[in-house]
Amino acid sequence: MTFPTLAEIQAAAQRIQPYIYQTPVLTSQSLNELAQANLYFKCENFQKTGSFKMRGASNVIFGLSSEEMKHGVATQSSGNHGQAVALAAKLRNIPAYIVMPNNSAQVKIDAVKAYGGKVILCESTIEAREAAVDKILAETQAHYVPPYNDFRVIAGQATVAFELHNQIPNLDIIIAPVGGGGLISGTALITKYITPKTLIIGAEPVEANDAFRSLQSGIMQSNITTNTIADGLRASIREKTFAVIKEHVHEIITVEEKEIADAMKLVWGRLKIVIEPSCAVPLAAVLSGKLQNQQGKKIGLILTGGNVDLDKVGKILA
Amino acid sequence: MTFPTLAEIQAAAQRIQPYIYQTPVLTSQSLNELAQANLYFKCENFQKTGSFKMRGASNVIFGLSSEEMKHGVATQSSGNHGQAVALAAKLRNIPAYIVMPNNSAQVKIDAVKAYGGKVILCESTIEAREAAVDKILAETQAHYVPPYNDFRVIAGQATVAFELHNQIPNLDIIIAPVGGGGLISGTALITKYITPKTLIIGAEPVEANDAFRSLQSGIMQSNITTNTIADGLRASIREKTFAVIKEHVHEIITVEEKEIADAMKLVWGRLKIVIEPSCAVPLAAVLSGKLQNQQGKKIGLILTGGNVDLDKVGKILA
Repeated sequence: MTFPTLAEIQAAAQRIQPYIYQTPVLTSQSLNELAQANLYFKCENFQKTGSFKMRGASNVIFGLSSEEMKHGVATQSSGNHGQAVALAAKLRNIPAYIVMPNNSAQVKIDAVKAYGGKVILCESTIEAREAAVDKILAETQAHYVPPYNDFRVIAGQATVAFELHNQIPNLDIIIAPVGGGGLISGTALITKYITPKTLIIGAEPVEANDAFRSLQSGIMQSNITTNTIADGLRASIREKTFAVIKEHVHEIITVEEKEIADAMKLVWGRLKIVIEPSCAVPLAAVLSGKLQNQQGKKIGLILTGGNVDLDKVGKILA
Repeated sequence: MTFPTLAEIQAAAQRIQPYIYQTPVLTSQSLNELAQANLYFKCENFQKTGSFKMRGASNVIFGLSSEEMKHGVATQSSGNHGQAVALAAKLRNIPAYIVMPNNSAQVKIDAVKAYGGKVILCESTIEAREAAVDKILAETQAHYVPPYNDFRVIAGQATVAFELHNQIPNLDIIIAPVGGGGLISGTALITKYITPKTLIIGAEPVEANDAFRSLQSGIMQSNITTNTIADGLRASIREKTFAVIKEHVHEIITVEEKEIADAMKLVWGRLKIVIEPSCAVPLAAVLSGKLQNQQGKKIGLILTGGNVDLDKVGKILA
């Protein structure tokens, strides 16, 4: 398996640059004191469509030839990936077919439509979703944009850490959350290429710990439970992301639900920004005490997105 | 009554510059579409201590002579002003005595202490609070730092709009929320001085509409009810702030509680930032339809702070 090279990630950064924001890096003295380390929060919650997924989707869609893109693109997603594919396709002026489970939050369906996506609703089982995607691909001959198990997507997601390393050189540690593994894979690759001394850590809920168990056992595992408020991390890693994680990620740290909720409240309260529960997992890892020798270190944490269901999140806060 | 001059506001800006942040201005295409106008959000929720109050407090405290400051400073506050006085005093290396009602949220008491303030708890009635302040002033001979009815404070708060006009020139309209009136007074004065064509609008909850009634009647009124989620706006205007408002504010727009909650959710959901309910009042005013001819206009909105009780706000969101 050939992983994306430095040149490919640089090309991705250049390709998507007109369509994404360079997101800010925030710091907080009080959080530094809590962690006894210097924390740098890379704020992809301010990214277009509200998450880093815009990077991977844009890299795929703007990398397609005129021939490949002529029937548009399709994907299935109940969340951020669908919005990202819809907007990137709109910016390239091609149709986007987004298969969504019929139990998706109305606000997410509306968001995809607002970005110009054509929403196809289906039953929420994996089988029904895959069947619906197969059907729409057959009907439209659209190009499929995978959510994470794809090296074009991984190269796009790598641009988050690429930017962060430019903004904050010489990080001792970089931590990203792990869902399907697209972000941590991209983060690991670019970090290896440009700052190989930096420790690469994945952070995962105990309740969705497939990457942790996979790295421990050396054999790819799926999630057994996904009962976590970090709804962006319920996906399981796949062949390509596991291959990168196995080779380049130093450690996966797992955290409990209460640690995630507490870390989320800290980010909201101290940084004054809205983040998804999934984003809080890296900070929860830092505050868990499970990271060796973090004292005084420069630690980059990737905040992946800000698309929260305010009513659900309200209940977590209240 | 002599209002702060342009030179005094410029001096305030220079005086406090080392102790405050230049806060960012955020925009949102989807909020612009909703408002059918171009909205510029001045983000004082990212200010030191989490609110614009740091500006007025710093202008007072760093404007004191060595003689005036030698016994420290004192104030009474259940909220942002207390934190601001505590931090500004700490930065000037003098003690700060903060009288707080004993029903203050523990998180606010802890915040004042974390900034080095000495907290004096008292009963929550106005009489008890004033008596406690008088007692501490007599005991310590500290310098009193008023929350808003003071031209040094007003000059400090004026620096918010001073910065905003530099960041976004030629605003057609500027809107600030009205509590005690320190912020709107400063905003009105600096706007008159540097961009006199800009319309100056105050925004207030119907449930705490003293400024609205005062401007209508021409006679200073106090709040009759303060039953609003915009807890930073429960104070009533006073002589100095009313004098400025009467002369320089074009209109006060009042909004209902539901409009405030809805506007707050929009800011959280679209801008991905944490704001106090009070900050949402200007956006609620813009979305209320009560502002004449806003279509296509450049409108600056001051977001005053981000110090929320997450449990209370959670209930508003949920």
